[in-house]
Amino acid sequence: MSNVKKVTKDKNLRIVPLGGLGEVGLNMILFEYRGKILIVDMGLGFPEEDMPGIDCIVPNISYLKGKKKNILGAIFTHGHYDHIGAIPYIIPRIGPLPMYASPLTKGIILKRQEDFPNQPKLNIEQVQNGSKIRLGPFSIEFFKLNHNIPDNLALFLQTPVGNIVHTSDFKFDETPVNDSPTDFEKLKRIGQRGILLLMSESTGAEEEGHSLSEKTILENLDKIFKKTNGRIIAATFASLINRIQQLISLSEKYGRKVAIEGHSMKTNVEIARNLKRIKIRKGTLIKTENITKFPDSKITILCTGAQGEEDAVFMRIANREHKFIQLKKGDTVIFSSSIVPGNERTVQYLKDEFHRQGAKVFHYKMMDIHASGHAKQDELRKMIQLMKPKFFLPIHGQYSMLVRHAELAEEMGIRKENILVAENGQVINLTANRIFIDQKRVPSNYVMVDGLGIGDVGEVVLRDRQTLAKDGMFVIIVVVDRQAGKVRGSPDIISRGFVYLRESKELLKETRLRVIRIVNRATGSRGAVNWSYVKDEIRNKIGEFLFSRTKRRPMVLPVIIEV
Amino acid sequence: MSNVKKVTKDKNLRIVPLGGLGEVGLNMILFEYRGKILIVDMGLGFPEEDMPGIDCIVPNISYLKGKKKNILGAIFTHGHYDHIGAIPYIIPRIGPLPMYASPLTKGIILKRQEDFPNQPKLNIEQVQNGSKIRLGPFSIEFFKLNHNIPDNLALFLQTPVGNIVHTSDFKFDETPVNDSPTDFEKLKRIGQRGILLLMSESTGAEEEGHSLSEKTILENLDKIFKKTNGRIIAATFASLINRIQQLISLSEKYGRKVAIEGHSMKTNVEIARNLKRIKIRKGTLIKTENITKFPDSKITILCTGAQGEEDAVFMRIANREHKFIQLKKGDTVIFSSSIVPGNERTVQYLKDEFHRQGAKVFHYKMMDIHASGHAKQDELRKMIQLMKPKFFLPIHGQYSMLVRHAELAEEMGIRKENILVAENGQVINLTANRIFIDQKRVPSNYVMVDGLGIGDVGEVVLRDRQTLAKDGMFVIIVVVDRQAGKVRGSPDIISRGFVYLRESKELLKETRLRVIRIVNRATGSRGAVNWSYVKDEIRNKIGEFLFSRTKRRPMVLPVIIEV
Repeated sequence: MSNVKKVTKDKNLRIVPLGGLGEVGLNMILFEYRGKILIVDMGLGFPEEDMPGIDCIVPNISYLKGKKKNILGAIFTHGHYDHIGAIPYIIPRIGPLPMYASPLTKGIILKRQEDFPNQPKLNIEQVQNGSKIRLGPFSIEFFKLNHNIPDNLALFLQTPVGNIVHTSDFKFDETPVNDSPTDFEKLKRIGQRGILLLMSESTGAEEEGHSLSEKTILENLDKIFKKTNGRIIAATFASLINRIQQLISLSEKYGRKVAIEGHSMKTNVEIARNLKRIKIRKGTLIKTENITKFPDSKITILCTGAQGEEDAVFMRIANREHKFIQLKKGDTVIFSSSIVPGNERTVQYLKDEFHRQGAKVFHYKMMDIHASGHAKQDELRKMIQLMKPKFFLPIHGQYSMLVRHAELAEEMGIRKENILVAENGQVINLTANRIFIDQKRVPSNYVMVDGLGIGDVGEVVLRDRQTLAKDGMFVIIVVVDRQAGKVRGSPDIISRGFVYLRESKELLKETRLRVIRIVNRATGSRGAVNWSYVKDEIRNKIGEFLFSRTKRRPMVLPVIIEV
Repeated sequence: MSNVKKVTKDKNLRIVPLGGLGEVGLNMILFEYRGKILIVDMGLGFPEEDMPGIDCIVPNISYLKGKKKNILGAIFTHGHYDHIGAIPYIIPRIGPLPMYASPLTKGIILKRQEDFPNQPKLNIEQVQNGSKIRLGPFSIEFFKLNHNIPDNLALFLQTPVGNIVHTSDFKFDETPVNDSPTDFEKLKRIGQRGILLLMSESTGAEEEGHSLSEKTILENLDKIFKKTNGRIIAATFASLINRIQQLISLSEKYGRKVAIEGHSMKTNVEIARNLKRIKIRKGTLIKTENITKFPDSKITILCTGAQGEEDAVFMRIANREHKFIQLKKGDTVIFSSSIVPGNERTVQYLKDEFHRQGAKVFHYKMMDIHASGHAKQDELRKMIQLMKPKFFLPIHGQYSMLVRHAELAEEMGIRKENILVAENGQVINLTANRIFIDQKRVPSNYVMVDGLGIGDVGEVVLRDRQTLAKDGMFVIIVVVDRQAGKVRGSPDIISRGFVYLRESKELLKETRLRVIRIVNRATGSRGAVNWSYVKDEIRNKIGEFLFSRTKRRPMVLPVIIEV
């Protein structure tokens, strides 16, 4: 009997999201058929606010342990870090494998790899719009969809249970910049081939209407360029190749030289330029140290840091710490980007500082100078209409976005029981007639990267960091004379982040007295001293004492040294 | 000569913003004429993201030191904490003084004061729409403006240099709820009396159009109530009395009992109800433990925490930690509030969790179920038009908002040189013909409140907290045998927030060896040992070593104990 069951189950296609279903970022999905595994994307995630010190998050790949031989290969949809950024953390663990990516995506992956010199060389096969590859039971056709980076490829997957479309990130744009318009006819033809399952991205599922066309953005940016006589300092995401193209083209139109600041943006422009994914006239680019050699009206500075990133160019300009760029009256600052949730206050700081330093500031709330790369509700509905899938699985987004996207699918006539809102680590089973989730989940808790450590920072370390951040720490070092059974001298106190020590002498003095009393009481009884009990006493009693005096709860750490 | 100058200067009215000009919150402004000082508002500010552990910010009142006798009194425009919240921190320092507030504002101030039992009793005189008082050289008339709390009063100040209007926070609403519509005729008459200076709030200065009327909000909430059969769980700000009224009225309309959860909301409703600023039928309110005694379709739960505050009701529900409220399928959750910048990710967490637990979720991005209490550009323009001031000073807002508001004033025909964008701590001088800023500033750096400490947490403590939060700390305790001149035993290491110690035994072992080597080298020379040099050595060398192994920089704190 159990054998029969196994065979039946074996005929299911298993879809295992390891990231991206429950957050924006961290995108990675496995397709598994009879044990053979195809990977789509390996993206980074961004640390949450309760993860101080964490650099980034990577998908949990415990499920792949011991399955190395069964991995057919990995496909990368586009060159954004939330789709490729985890490669250097994952590949060393599952070994080199066949990889497939479009030219620009490949270029960005290989360039990034240079930051990890000890890693094995990657073997990436180039694919493009119209490419077909076969990997085990899967046959994959790549087709282009607009996004805000060139060479974005969606997937038409032929599997033994039926056809699947994975949209990658996308938007529909009939008048894009630096890219060809959405080919609706082609999408229609794909839909006509019969789609069993549509996996569509959900980042914009809570936003009504249609995303702005890049043409609108270009026109609005043009208005700013047209009326500006001073320098233009524009920031956007380093990965927004199409926006960078717009800003460079406009600069050329108005006879401005362009200085690019920020390592990641420089690198991306270089890669894109080499692959002819970005067009720059000879002589347009200048070095930042040369900006003073041209009149202000002939200067554009393109840079990173529109999110208020700590060490990025924009922040250094705001803090008046940039070597070559000091703001002055007459400068115009453009934020050509939306605000990533969580960065609102830092971006406000930038805006305020730029205003204080006399610059004119433009941002996306004043004027449409940024468009999301993600389809909004009208486009998501249209995608469902074009594909006419039997089953629907929203991917890429916060849980609330997945739910909203599922509602849209239902509104579009897909039967409720054919729509699945799944989460990371759930195993989605697909047959020609059914979609359902396994009882058993695979590990999908976040793996945090901090410096060189991958996954070594866990709950305990994070909780300690939060406690330390809130009220600091308070180390008490007591030297006990073993023979006399008494505290020797006065306990040392090392405290940081709690109170300003120089102004708290009374508090420290009283604390020391209390510590001595606790220890001497314990050692006075002449029996064997239970030091861990004494430490607990110090921790609790001194913790309470400090709280009663300050209403703060520093982490109290007693150390007892017997001599 | 210097005497003449002094007399001249004495004829200026001095306006000293101690908070609110450069941030949203912390509102407090002084009006000073010939040394006599009138205070308007004493508000709290919210800690920035780089201020871990800080409870709130209060205005810096160093300028008032030694001027106690000259303070005429304090006026409070309305009962929001960013206008009254700093009272318990300020009054004990400047002594009891005459205070003026509307009935609801007074009620909220006095209730809050109960949390500070050791403070002197406050002496608050009640004022209302149309009240006139005289304080030294100032004559003050109060007039009503709509906001999202009842009893909001703007100020018409007659001063020796001319008339000033201070708008408080406001919006124009011709169809408000729980309040009378804006009286434009009255505002016009005020403007006709001749306004030398308009001080108008700027919170909405970057938003185009007109704020939504509360009537629209009510209609949209009604739609939700109408179609909902399950329980309704609605959260809003505890201070949004008018919204709370709407939710209660709708519950009554649809035969729902209302349970209020959250101390601050309960308190505010009680105060407002006693003052007849909120109307609740007998029998509408029930205790939360009794919600199961009624069918789900007859239950509304009103609560706090729509911003994701850590211990508030909403968060406890999301974390399944609430004693009486567990979400279930069929529940409808309403966020009737905007998101305060900085809280985006936490609010997203709440939304996701509510979805996961099967609730239907409504928030202000889906539908107009929240209106700001702050005038947007159309209303701000209209206020300028009604007042026709000679001079204009934008108040209450981030610097970028003040700048935008100043631009609006210029668009409305006020001469550029008559508009001042000022900041906290600047002294604004006003005469009948001129407005200008003194060279000299008064102290206005933020005063941070942390537990019982007011202003004792400064740069150093904050910087330490940030460092601790990022990479934790690493205390090394070395016991040195004075006679032998050698390290005794193995150094103790206390580390938190850095690495998971149990999995880092090798790292700790090697660190200990390196510490012993550093100390023994120093003590081996047999001369007098420079211990502070040795500590620096440990700090630097071990810091570098740990960084080379982990790419993390914990705070390294060496302790040397000689025995």
